[in-house]
Amino acid sequence: MISRETHDRMANAIRFLSMDAVEKANSGHPGLPMGAADVATVLFSRYLRFDPKKPNWPNRDRFILSAGHGSMLLYSLLYLTGYEDMTIEEIKNFRQLGAKTAGHPEFGHAAGIETTTGPLGQGIANSVGFAIAERKLNAEFGPEFIDHHTYVLVGDGCLMEGVSQEAIALAGHLKLNKLIVFWDNNNITIDGAVSLSDSTDQIARFKSVHWNTIEIDGHDPEQIAQAIEAAHASDRPTFIAAKTTIGFGAPNKAGTHKVHGSPLGAEEIAATRKALNWESPAFEIPDDVLSAWRQSGARSVELRETWEKGLEQTDAGKKSEFLRRFAGDLPKGLDGAIADYKKKLAETKPSPATRKASEDALEVINGIVVETLGGSADLTPSNNTKTSQMVSISPTDFSGRYMHYGIREHGMAAAMNGIALHGGLIPYSGGFLIFSDYCRPSIRLAALMGIRVIHVLTHDSIGLGEDGPTHQPVEQVAALRAIPNLLVFRPADATETAECWQLALHNQHRPSALALTRQNLMAVRTEYVEENLCGKGAYELVKADDAKVSIFASGSEIEIAVKAAEALSAKGVAARVVSVPCFELFEEQSDEYRADVIGKAPVKIAVEAAVRQGWDHLIGSDGVFVGMKSFGASGPYKDLYKHFGITVEAVVEAAEAKLA
Amino acid sequence: MISRETHDRMANAIRFLSMDAVEKANSGHPGLPMGAADVATVLFSRYLRFDPKKPNWPNRDRFILSAGHGSMLLYSLLYLTGYEDMTIEEIKNFRQLGAKTAGHPEFGHAAGIETTTGPLGQGIANSVGFAIAERKLNAEFGPEFIDHHTYVLVGDGCLMEGVSQEAIALAGHLKLNKLIVFWDNNNITIDGAVSLSDSTDQIARFKSVHWNTIEIDGHDPEQIAQAIEAAHASDRPTFIAAKTTIGFGAPNKAGTHKVHGSPLGAEEIAATRKALNWESPAFEIPDDVLSAWRQSGARSVELRETWEKGLEQTDAGKKSEFLRRFAGDLPKGLDGAIADYKKKLAETKPSPATRKASEDALEVINGIVVETLGGSADLTPSNNTKTSQMVSISPTDFSGRYMHYGIREHGMAAAMNGIALHGGLIPYSGGFLIFSDYCRPSIRLAALMGIRVIHVLTHDSIGLGEDGPTHQPVEQVAALRAIPNLLVFRPADATETAECWQLALHNQHRPSALALTRQNLMAVRTEYVEENLCGKGAYELVKADDAKVSIFASGSEIEIAVKAAEALSAKGVAARVVSVPCFELFEEQSDEYRADVIGKAPVKIAVEAAVRQGWDHLIGSDGVFVGMKSFGASGPYKDLYKHFGITVEAVVEAAEAKLA
Repeated sequence: MISRETHDRMANAIRFLSMDAVEKANSGHPGLPMGAADVATVLFSRYLRFDPKKPNWPNRDRFILSAGHGSMLLYSLLYLTGYEDMTIEEIKNFRQLGAKTAGHPEFGHAAGIETTTGPLGQGIANSVGFAIAERKLNAEFGPEFIDHHTYVLVGDGCLMEGVSQEAIALAGHLKLNKLIVFWDNNNITIDGAVSLSDSTDQIARFKSVHWNTIEIDGHDPEQIAQAIEAAHASDRPTFIAAKTTIGFGAPNKAGTHKVHGSPLGAEEIAATRKALNWESPAFEIPDDVLSAWRQSGARSVELRETWEKGLEQTDAGKKSEFLRRFAGDLPKGLDGAIADYKKKLAETKPSPATRKASEDALEVINGIVVETLGGSADLTPSNNTKTSQMVSISPTDFSGRYMHYGIREHGMAAAMNGIALHGGLIPYSGGFLIFSDYCRPSIRLAALMGIRVIHVLTHDSIGLGEDGPTHQPVEQVAALRAIPNLLVFRPADATETAECWQLALHNQHRPSALALTRQNLMAVRTEYVEENLCGKGAYELVKADDAKVSIFASGSEIEIAVKAAEALSAKGVAARVVSVPCFELFEEQSDEYRADVIGKAPVKIAVEAAVRQGWDHLIGSDGVFVGMKSFGASGPYKDLYKHFGITVEAVVEAAEAKLA
Repeated sequence: MISRETHDRMANAIRFLSMDAVEKANSGHPGLPMGAADVATVLFSRYLRFDPKKPNWPNRDRFILSAGHGSMLLYSLLYLTGYEDMTIEEIKNFRQLGAKTAGHPEFGHAAGIETTTGPLGQGIANSVGFAIAERKLNAEFGPEFIDHHTYVLVGDGCLMEGVSQEAIALAGHLKLNKLIVFWDNNNITIDGAVSLSDSTDQIARFKSVHWNTIEIDGHDPEQIAQAIEAAHASDRPTFIAAKTTIGFGAPNKAGTHKVHGSPLGAEEIAATRKALNWESPAFEIPDDVLSAWRQSGARSVELRETWEKGLEQTDAGKKSEFLRRFAGDLPKGLDGAIADYKKKLAETKPSPATRKASEDALEVINGIVVETLGGSADLTPSNNTKTSQMVSISPTDFSGRYMHYGIREHGMAAAMNGIALHGGLIPYSGGFLIFSDYCRPSIRLAALMGIRVIHVLTHDSIGLGEDGPTHQPVEQVAALRAIPNLLVFRPADATETAECWQLALHNQHRPSALALTRQNLMAVRTEYVEENLCGKGAYELVKADDAKVSIFASGSEIEIAVKAAEALSAKGVAARVVSVPCFELFEEQSDEYRADVIGKAPVKIAVEAAVRQGWDHLIGSDGVFVGMKSFGASGPYKDLYKHFGITVEAVVEAAEAKLA
C-alpha cells in the first residue's frame, strides 16, 4: 500500500522532471504532465502490468499517451519505473536532436513508447486497435496468452477531433471492455478556456456510444484507484473523466493556458518547489521516491515470469506459432503459393478489375497468412476485401478475421495502426482511394512509425465513372507517393496485383497502399516469371530495339501504353513500355538499373489517369504527360477517358508530334 | 393545405423520377430518394422558403443534401418545383457526361445546388458554416435582410464520419437554432444492417452537444410538419430522427441494402408502380402532381418580392454594401492600402516569421475588407490570425468576426466552405500546415467548387523545430500542390506575404493555402515594386549575367538561396535566384515568361525544406534538389537544417560538384 504522502512525492517527481526538462529545453508542454501526474502515478504504481526489463512482453498492459504533447509525463514514468534506455541524460536532453526524448513520443525511440502520438485524436483511435487486437488474440490463443488492458490518457483536443468519435463509437459497439480511457479534464486549450469553443457533455457523449462512465477528482488517488477497479469490472469500455488542474502545483500559473505549451520560467519553478515542498535540484530524484518508483516498476515481474513459463509449457506448435506471429515473420508457405497462383494466371490470362484481382490474391494469401485481419469502411462489396476465410467479428465473437469498421475511414486507419503495433496481426483495410484523404493523418503515422498496415484503395481514377469528381481520385496517388516510407502500388493486372500484395506483406517495416481499379483490365503479364518484377518498382514490360519512344505507365493505363506501343511500332516507330507499379521501390534500385529502365529513347511519355506531379522524375520536364489536368467528371468511364484525352490515339499523336 | 393523397402523389413523383433515372443510367442510388421523399415533400411543399425563378435570393432558406449519393432526390425536387435549368432532359441524362445531373450534386452545375456533396459528412459540416454565416450576417445587416433556416438531410454515413462530430459539437456550442438536420434513419449501409458496425444512440449523442432532438415516423407528413414547426421554435439546433424505409415502395427490395446503390431493375420498378398505384410512364409526371409541385415552388415569391422592396428602400450605402458583399467584390481601398503597406516594408525591411508577417498584412486587410471572418482551430496565438479588428463570436453574440473553431481542423474547413458558399463573407482559417492532412477532404471540395476560402497554415517545415516529425510538414506542400484549382503560396518574407494575401483575396473562384513559417526570415524584397511579383508564381529575385547556376526556392529557403548565390558569385560563379511562391500561378504564365524565368543556366538547383516531388517540373530530373528525403526530427531548428543538409554550404557544394 502506497501512503498518500508517498503517492504525492511520486507524483511530484513526475511534475519536477517535466517542468525542469521543459525549462532546460526552453520548449515543451509542462501543463499536462503536472496535471495528470496523480492519475499516472496511481495507474503505474498500482495497476499497470508491465516489466521495464522486458518491455516487449506480449501480454503487458498498454499505456497510450494520446495527448502526446505531454510527452514528459511518459518519459518521466519510463525513467522512474526503470526502463534501461530512458536515462536521466535522456531526460536532460529533452527535445534535442538525437535524443530518445523527442518533442512528442516517437514509437521506436525508446522502449515503453507504444505508439507515436502528438497529432490529436490519433492515440485514442490507435488504442481501439490495440483493444481489438487484444480481444482477437485472446479469442485465438486463449486468455493464458493474451489478456490485458489498454489504458489511454486523452485531453480535450483528442476528444474534439472527429476521429475520436469514430473510435469511441466503434469501441462502444464492440464492447471493448479492456479499454480504459482517462480524460485529463482541465478545461484549458491553447486559445484559452474550453468554453470558448466547446460545451460538450462528454459523459453523456460516451454514454450515447455505450461506454461505462465515471467522474472523479483527478488529484485524489483513492478516487482514481476506485475508478480503475470499477473499470476492470465493467463489461463495456470505460471513460474516466478526471477533473484536474493543468500545471498543478505552479502557484501563479496553474489552471491557465500559460502552462500548456511554454516553460514555466525559473521564478515560477522556484515557487512551485516551495509550494510542493520539493527540495531536490533539477533532475535529481530523492532516493526514497526513486526507490518507490522502481518497486512499482518491478511489480509485475512475477506475473511476466509465470506467463513465460506458461508459454514454455504449451505445445511446441502453438508456442512457435505465437512467437512467429509476434516476431512478425510470415508463414513459410506464402511465397510458394503466390508462385503457383502466378503460374495459374499465366495460363488463364484473366482480365478482372484489379480490385477483383486483389480479392483473388487475398483468397490465396488469407488461406496461409492466418494473421491477416481484414476489413472495410463499409465498402466490402466494392473493395472485394472479404474472402472466403473472413468471418465477421462481432461484439460477442472475436474469433473471426473481418472488421466492419463502419463509415469511418480515419478511425479505421488509426485502429489498424494500433492493431499492427500490438503485434500478432497484419491488418488490411478496404476503402475508396479518394477517401485516403479522410485517413491520411493515420497513414502518415504508419509510415513514420514504420509499421505494416496495408490499405486496399479501390476505384482509383476517373475509371470509376458515374460517381463523378467527388469520388474520382486525381491527386491522391501523387499525394500518397509524397509520404516518405509509404509504398504506393498501382498494379496493372492480376499478376502485378499478386506481386504487389506479396511485397506489401514482406515489407514488415513500412505500410503499403494498393490503388486498384473498379473497371476490368486486360492481362499484360502473360508469361510466368518467377521473379517478383514489381519488386523493382518499374521494369520493361514491352521491349523494342533502338526505341524512339519510351512509354511509362501504371495500373489501368498500362493497357493504353501497350496498345499505343503496338500502334507506333506498326507505323515503324519503335516503342517500348515500362510498367511503373511502385515509384518508391524504383527509387531504391541501383543507378545502373534505373538508367537502363528509363532508357535512351528520345521521346519519353508517361500515362496515368491522374495529375502529372511526380512523373517528371522519370520523363523529365520536357517529357510528355498524358493524364489529368483537372478534376474529373460524372459519366460512363469510357466517355471520360475520351473526354480527358487519355487514349491510345492521344499517346500515339503525342509521340509523333514530339518526333516530328 | 395539401391533402394526404396529394402529398403521397407528390412524394411518389420523386420516387419514380429517381428510380427511373437510375434505371436509365444503369447507375446510381435509388434507395435514399425513395426513403426520404416524404420528408423532402413536406419540407419543400410547405416550409422551405425559396424561389426557383430567383435561385440566388440571398435570404432564401438553404437545403443541403449531405447524403449526396441520393442526388436524384435533389434533382427531382429542382425539376418539380420549377428550376428552369433542371429540365426533364437533364433528369433523363442523369450521370451522363456534360449533364447537370452528375452522380453527386455538384455546386455550379445547376441552380439550387447549394454545395457539392458526396464525400460523407461534408454536407452537415458545410451546413454549420451556412448557419454561422446566417447568424453573423443577421447580426450585421439585421433580420430584414438575413434571417433564414438551413435544412440538412443526412444519412448514417454522414453521422458515422468523424467530421460530423466536430460540426455538431460546434453548432450545439454556438446554439445555431436556425439549423435543422433530418436524419434519414433507415438502418441500412452498404455492408448491410447498421448494426454490423454501429450502435450509437444518435438522439443521446446530439443531446450531449445540446441539440434539440425529435423522433418521428419519416413517412408521416403530419409528424414531419410538426417536427419542423417545433424546430422553428427551438433556441438550439434541431436534430429530427426520421425513421424511414430505404427504397420505400419497392415491394421486394425496400428495407435492404440492395436498393442503396444499384438500379432496381425493370421488374422491381414495374412492381413498385403497381404497389404505389402509379400509372405514368418513366419521366412523365401527371399534370395534377406537377401542378401541385409548381405551386409549392411559387410559395415564396411574395416573400422574396417584399424582401427585394425592403432592400430597394434601405439607404443607398447599406444597399450597395450588401450587394457588393454578396457579389463577392472586394472593397476599393484594398489594393491601395497594400501598396502603402509594401512601401513601408521596403523602408523598414523587417524580418519577422511569415506567420507574423501574415498578421501584419491581415491588420491592413481586416481594416478594409470587413467581410473577412477569421478563425483558428485552437492555435490563435501560434497562427497569428486574430488582428485588432477581430472580436470573438460567441453563442450569444455574433457581431464579432473571429471564430474559435476548437481543435477541429476538418470541421473548420468544411464550415468555411459553407460560409463562403452562403455569400457575404470571406472566411480564413488558422492551423498548422501539418494538419492540412486533417482537413484535406474539405480543402479539396473548396477547390472543386471554386470558392474563396483562405487557409493560413503556419509552422510549415522542420523550421518549427522541437515539436518533431509528427508536427513537421515534409510532404504537405507537395500534397496540396497536387490538388487542382488550389493556390498554394509559400512566401519568403513580409512583402511576399502581403502579395500572397492580396492574390488570395482577389481569386474569388478558387481557394488558397498560405504556408507560413514559425521562425523569423530576413527581408529579401528590399525595394518597393508596385507590381505584385508573386502574381506570376515565380520571378527572378537575384539576377546574374551569364548565370552558370539558377537556384529556385520558396519561403524560408529563399534566404539560403540568396546567400548561396552570393557565395558562388564571390567565387566567380555567376548565380541567379528565382523565388517560387506559387507553382500554380507560374504554370499559368506564357511559355515565354516561363522559359525566361527558368533560364538557361547549365546547373539548376531547387531548395525547399520538403520533399522533391513537383520541383522536377522546374529543374528537370537532372537538376539538384536540396531538401528533405525523409520525415523530420525533434530538435532546435538550426540543428535540423544542418542535420538534413539544407544549408548555404550544401547548395554551394552541389553547384560546384555539378559544374566540375
